[in-house]
This record gives sequence, C-alpha cells and structure tokens, in this order.
Amino acid sequence: MAPNLDSYFSQVDNLSDHFIERLRQAVAIPSVSSEAARRPDVVRMGHFLADELTKLGASVELRELGPQPGTDLTLPPVVLARYGSDESKRTILVYGHYDVQPAEKSDGWETEPFELTVKEDGRMLGRGSTDDKGPVLGWLNAIEAHKVAGIDFPVNLLMCFEGMEEYGSEGLEDLINLEGKKYFADADAVCISDNYWLGTERPCLTYGLRGCNYYSVEVSGPGADLHSGVFGGTAQEPMTDLVRILGSLVDTDGKIQIAGISDQVAPITAEEDGLYDGIAFTMETLHESLGSKTTIFEDKKSTLMARWRYPSLSVHGIEGAFSAPGAKTVIPAKVIGKFSIRTVPNMEVDQTNAVVYKHVEEAFKKLGSKNTMKVYAQHTGKWWVASPNHWNFSAAAKATERVWGVKPDFTREGGSIPVTITFEEATGKNVLLLPMGSSTDGAHSINEKLDKRNYIEGIKLLGAYLHYVAEEAIV
Amino acid sequence: MAPNLDSYFSQVDNLSDHFIERLRQAVAIPSVSSEAARRPDVVRMGHFLADELTKLGASVELRELGPQPGTDLTLPPVVLARYGSDESKRTILVYGHYDVQPAEKSDGWETEPFELTVKEDGRMLGRGSTDDKGPVLGWLNAIEAHKVAGIDFPVNLLMCFEGMEEYGSEGLEDLINLEGKKYFADADAVCISDNYWLGTERPCLTYGLRGCNYYSVEVSGPGADLHSGVFGGTAQEPMTDLVRILGSLVDTDGKIQIAGISDQVAPITAEEDGLYDGIAFTMETLHESLGSKTTIFEDKKSTLMARWRYPSLSVHGIEGAFSAPGAKTVIPAKVIGKFSIRTVPNMEVDQTNAVVYKHVEEAFKKLGSKNTMKVYAQHTGKWWVASPNHWNFSAAAKATERVWGVKPDFTREGGSIPVTITFEEATGKNVLLLPMGSSTDGAHSINEKLDKRNYIEGIKLLGAYLHYVAEEAIV
Repeated sequence: MAPNLDSYFSQVDNLSDHFIERLRQAVAIPSVSSEAARRPDVVRMGHFLADELTKLGASVELRELGPQPGTDLTLPPVVLARYGSDESKRTILVYGHYDVQPAEKSDGWETEPFELTVKEDGRMLGRGSTDDKGPVLGWLNAIEAHKVAGIDFPVNLLMCFEGMEEYGSEGLEDLINLEGKKYFADADAVCISDNYWLGTERPCLTYGLRGCNYYSVEVSGPGADLHSGVFGGTAQEPMTDLVRILGSLVDTDGKIQIAGISDQVAPITAEEDGLYDGIAFTMETLHESLGSKTTIFEDKKSTLMARWRYPSLSVHGIEGAFSAPGAKTVIPAKVIGKFSIRTVPNMEVDQTNAVVYKHVEEAFKKLGSKNTMKVYAQHTGKWWVASPNHWNFSAAAKATERVWGVKPDFTREGGSIPVTITFEEATGKNVLLLPMGSSTDGAHSINEKLDKRNYIEGIKLLGAYLHYVAEEAIV
Repeated sequence: MAPNLDSYFSQVDNLSDHFIERLRQAVAIPSVSSEAARRPDVVRMGHFLADELTKLGASVELRELGPQPGTDLTLPPVVLARYGSDESKRTILVYGHYDVQPAEKSDGWETEPFELTVKEDGRMLGRGSTDDKGPVLGWLNAIEAHKVAGIDFPVNLLMCFEGMEEYGSEGLEDLINLEGKKYFADADAVCISDNYWLGTERPCLTYGLRGCNYYSVEVSGPGADLHSGVFGGTAQEPMTDLVRILGSLVDTDGKIQIAGISDQVAPITAEEDGLYDGIAFTMETLHESLGSKTTIFEDKKSTLMARWRYPSLSVHGIEGAFSAPGAKTVIPAKVIGKFSIRTVPNMEVDQTNAVVYKHVEEAFKKLGSKNTMKVYAQHTGKWWVASPNHWNFSAAAKATERVWGVKPDFTREGGSIPVTITFEEATGKNVLLLPMGSSTDGAHSINEKLDKRNYIEGIKLLGAYLHYVAEEAIV
C-alpha cells in the first residue's frame, strides 16, 4: 500500500522558497569544468555541496582525484556522502554532477547565465538549473523536508556528486570501480536524476542511453597565423583541409558517411518496433524545444528511433580559427575541428574509433596536403540499456503516479551519462534514470531553465520514490 | 645631385631611443577596429597621433565620420594634418592607419601583444609595430629629426591617418573623394607606407596590389543552441551544412572551385612573363616567413605569380560555433563562415560577388536543407596597379639606394590596401607604396614585429625620399 506522504509533500511546499534560494546559490557558482580558468569555481561548488550536506546531518567525504591528465590542473573533488546507516533499511545510491557547460551572456542569454532568474511563467533561468544542479539539490531538499516534517527517512541514502561530467567525467570511473564493493557496498539499487522528460507533460523513467565518443581533428602547417594577402595562394591552408574533412563526415539528413558505422548498429526487433507508438511525444513538442521545424523526419517514430537507437554525428566547432564577429583576414596556422558520435547497441568504442580514424585519415590523404593532420578521441563513453522490470523501476513508477497522477513512459534517451554503465558494472545493481526537468529546459543551450513546478514536484518525486523503494517487493 | 642628408641621418640615429619610445606608447594602445569593446582605444590612438603632430608644429584636424553602419558604434576620427605650406615646394600626401588586427596573448604570443618588447636580435614585438604604427610614426619622426637637426623640411607634407583599415576602411572613401580637390588639392604625389619587403634584405617599391572581397555565409535553423545528445540525429544541423559549403570553395593547392572566377583574370603577357626572374626572392625566405615548407609551389616564379597576379581564397573561421579548447557537445543554432578572395586585374567586384553568391547558393541548394542560408560581402576592395616610371618612384628609388646601398626591386603585393586606388582616383596623382618592414614581420599574425634596423633606417628612407622628391625632374 502507498506510504503516507502527505505531510512530506506539504513540507516541500512550505519550504519551496528556501529550496529555490538554495538553487540560486548553486547557480551563482560558475562551475564550468571545461574551462581551466573556472576550475576554482568547480572546486568551490563541490565544497558548497559538502557544507550543505554536513549541515543536514550527512557524513561527507571530499575525494580528491589528483591531476587532470594532459593539463596542469587538479581535478575537482568527488563529493561522497551517506545519510543513514540502518541495516534494516534498503540503501539507495544516487548520483549527480555539480559542474556545468560553458555559458556567456554574449552567447545570447536573455539573463545573466550565472544568476538564477525566476520568471512569472515559472521558468527558472540559469546555467546548471536543470543540468544538473536542480536535481542534485533535489536529494538534499528531500532530506531537509523529512527532517523538518519529522518523518523517518525511509532508506539509507548514499550520494556521489562529481564535478567533471561535462568534460568526460575524468577520474570518476576509477573511483567508482574502487568503491563499488567498499563505500557503495551496501547499495541495493542506483538512481540518477540527470535527464529529461520527452515532452513537457508526461513524466518518464529512462532505461537506456546513447554513448558519446568526442573527437578532435588537428590540422597544422605554418609556424604562425598568416596574413591572407601576403600568403594567400602560395601556402596550403590548414582550414581548407579541415573544412573538407569535416564536410565528409555526415550529410544534412544526419546520415553518417563513415564506412563501417552502420554495420555496428543492432537490428531492430519486432518487439522494439511496437514500443514507439504509445510514447507521449509529439512533433509539435519537438518543434517547440527545437525552436524551429528543421527536423530530419516528419514523424514521431522515426524521430524517436533516431534519438534512441541510431547513432548521430554532430560537428561542434573549430578551435584556432577566427571565431569573433567582424572580419579578420587571417590564415590560421593550426585548427582543431571538434565532432562527436552518439553511439548505440551494439557499437564498441574501439571498433567505432577505428573506423572514424580510418575515414578521417583517408579523407586527409585524398587532399594530397603537405600539412600535418592528427585525429584522436578526447573522450569516449559507452551506451547503456537496463531492465525496466526491476523493483527499482516499479517503485519509481508508483512514486510518479502518486506525485504527477499519471503513469510514466518508459523511455530511452539520446544523451550520454557515461557514469551510468560504470555504476551498473561496479555495483552489479540495477540503475534507474529518474528525470526532474522537461524537454524544453535547453540543457547545454542558452537560456537553460528548470520550471519551478518540475523542481518542487520533482523534490516530492525523489522523496516518494525512496518511500516506495523501501516497501517494494523484490520481483 | 643627391641632397646632403648626412646630418639628418645622424640626427635620426641620435633620436632612435626616443623614436622607439614613441612606438612603445602607440603599441600600448590596443586600437583593434574590428572589436566593438576596443573602439574607445581606437579613438584614443587617433588623439595620441593628433597630439604628437600638434607638438611637432603640424596643423591637425580630427575628422569625425559619424555612426558605423549596422552597429551602434561611432567610427573613429580620421587624422588630417599639414606640415608646411610653402608654394615653392612640392606637396606630398602620405597615408597610414593607426588601427590594428585583433590580438590576445592566448593566441600564442610569446610576449604581451600590446607591450612593445625589444629583443636582443633587434626584433621589436607588438601588435601594430609593423602594421602600421611603425611606418605612421616614421613620418612624425622624420619631421622631428629635421626640426632638431635644424634642416629645412624639403616638401609640404599632407597626412591622412585612419582608424578603420583593418575593418574595410569604413567611411574613409567618402572623405577622400570629398577632400581630393580640397584638403588634398595641392598634393603632387601620394606615398603610402603600409606593406613589406618581399624578403629580408633587398628593399622594394610597390606598384600593384590585390583587392580583397570578404564574405560571410550564415546558416541558421534551431531557435537556440542544442544538446547534441537530445537532438543529434533528429535535427538538421547548421554546422553540417556550413562545413560542406566552405569545403566546396577551394582545394588544398589553392585552386578556387567557384565557376567564373578564372575567366575574370587577365592573361599573362610576354613582358610580364619576364619580370619575375630578377626579383630578390627565394623560396628559403618564404619558408622562413611561413615557418614551414607547406607551400603550394616549389619555384619562385609560380609563387610570385600566385601572390601578385592570381586570385586566392582563404577560409578564416566560423562565428557562433564552439571555438574554445576542450569539449562541448553543442549543436550551434546559427553559424557564420568567413572567407575572403584576393582579387587581381581584371576582376570586377560586382562580377566576382555574383559568381561567389551563385556558387554558395547552389552548394547550399544541393544539400536539400531546411535550414536558412544567407551569403553576403562584409566588405570589398578593388585591386590596383600604378606606373612605376613616374618621378615619385624614381625619387623613392634614389632614396632607397642612398639609405640601403642597393637598387630596390619594383614589385607588386598580394595584400590589399583599398585606399590606394581611392587616393589615385580622388587626387588624380601617382601613388607609391614605400615599405618599411620586411617579409618576416608577421602582420596579422602572433608575434608581429618590426626590426629596429628597418624602423630606424626606414625613418631615414622616408625623409630622404622627401628630399629626392623635392628635386626630382618631372619625366
């Protein structure tokens, strides 16, 4: 039978302003993990979380991960915390990340990206609001609401919050493998809140993710940048080579041009083929979150399959070329193209890297250039698919129906949370993805937001999930 | 007979530290015309020049050019100055620019770009040292050395120094056309010092330039940047379209792929064909200034022809994409590719634009993309070729031989100084390009420098040129 959650829910409502203030403080710390200059802010964010958790009565450890390979930087600490150690209770391990994507007002934000701005329509704008500071604080808020309401916390909660997720979770995998049978030893299941509803109305539980292999193609020639008037026509230009290589990777309709990729993709089964039609997802919602109608497909099924079960390739940008507004007549001496491939079953990282390197090397060879080209993976992450029939998922489904009044969709996602598979392998336990935000939140984009409703109801959901987990029978 | 210049030359040597200090003050003002935030520094640099000229006894006007089209910026003033108005003397109009290319230490500079750093080997590193603050100050220094030495100044000197050269000389053409028969009415010839020796040893006089048409290709689709995990494979990506368009423009060996360009290039004559072999230029010097051996051609003649009399196309960069170090899994919503074409006789701006727009539009059409594409010229500038037999050139040749002890090469250049043709048309007078710096100065590059020897001897050259101009017979 459903646990009595009413007093917990009303306490969350009472504390909602306080919880929003806590999110404001977190967003104000520009913890951008991919920018060296921001590293002290990332560390500061880790300490902020540790302090908040300590105040709430959790036992906290800041785990240092040492130097960041290939840099003179030190990796930010992983926040490990335990709240409760009652052997009669189930133990749930939750994960989140406290670092964020880069953001500058000049990118086109309507507000200061590192100042949480609550709009009248309930949008709470700010970098990290939904990815992933809101959900991370959700767990802290759930603890606090229980304490204030005087309700016994239903489980032992293990927490693992990292500061390098947006830069390939450097250093975390080793730590999780190390602690799988130690700090995380008594975990009965894992829950990660770091993804999004498919749309804006129906909640979902997620049991699959795509992987992400991120590549750099470096082309260099001249000793320094050159004046295009003086050298144009006499020197082979790295940019000329690079745009031709980048132009060979994928076509406008997303078809990857790299030989050997499609052979690695698992064929579709009849059972899977029937899954897509029932999902609460419309092209209208996609167009809304996209902000345009420039979709590759016109129908829901092809679109969901393209996002969930087929690989995609995106060209992200070029480092070393002229990137400012205006006109600069420079021939860049060294340019680094960045692209990534979202991977799916049954692609293997090494196999994928091999065909990518082969394609890029052959494309460069075709150019007959005297410049120097290097292609390498900045980071790689495997895809993940879990069993949605586990009690971890059924408890989350009941909690969702209790809080939101609807049964959740069981979905997969196009994004990558490499740590998911690491937790599964290190603990040997079921992993659930329980999203807080909705499809229009714009993670990684300008004007990233979390709706107040999703934040507050999401805090209720995380708490309710722990209550249902506590009483859910093992199936 | 050659004028007695010895006391002028020795005075320049006596004042050399003072002249270097003046250059240090100028380089310290980051007058980057293409960056809105730097506009006040550009204006400050104009006022610095006006103040120095006034102190030297010149009559100075700061001519405002009004708002910069398409921005909320005001154009920096043009510094107009006159030194001397003796009707018995010839009047020489000189031009230079006090704005510079963008520069950041993080671009890879070995020194702070806006701090002049004099190395033991005589290299004076700093943005604008050679392009074009050194030569501009050369005229001021020539005046000062005459005053201090008590030598009568041989000509009336008209000066026109602008602050928008690196951004298409916006607003200047109208001013020159307006003043051609007014402020510049008594000019007998024009001299511009804003280019470079072909090598590092033999000086040259330049009688031809390539033009420059600078283009933007804008591709947009989504309403904001997107997360490549969530949208990869479901949305048509502007970057995918843009790199394919940029990849279609030119090949690794510099061959422009745009139909209709080569038809616009003047055929080579037997006389021109014989010009190249005598020029003091070696592939070794080119490799040195290039900092590599990644040249398109292996021989001097093909290389000089490629620089002087054939068009070239360079891809400079992309605005709006991810350009920082590290990894960002973003799908940019709007990206602007930047490329330029160096133009030569007999290419006409309108004809060239027409075939460029046609090529880009067809390349985009081929993609069958739902994204939106715009192609347009940011600025255009015509090529220029003058008569090297004019007394303006013969005076400069004698001055060069007097200062440097060698006859100068008569050369053309690959770079663009659009104002050259404007002065020729507005005054109807011969225009001479008299370079101060050498081929290894690296204008527009990191570690831009002017050799101390070229600066000091260059000051002597500019002064000597004015003395020979004063007595040169009209041929």
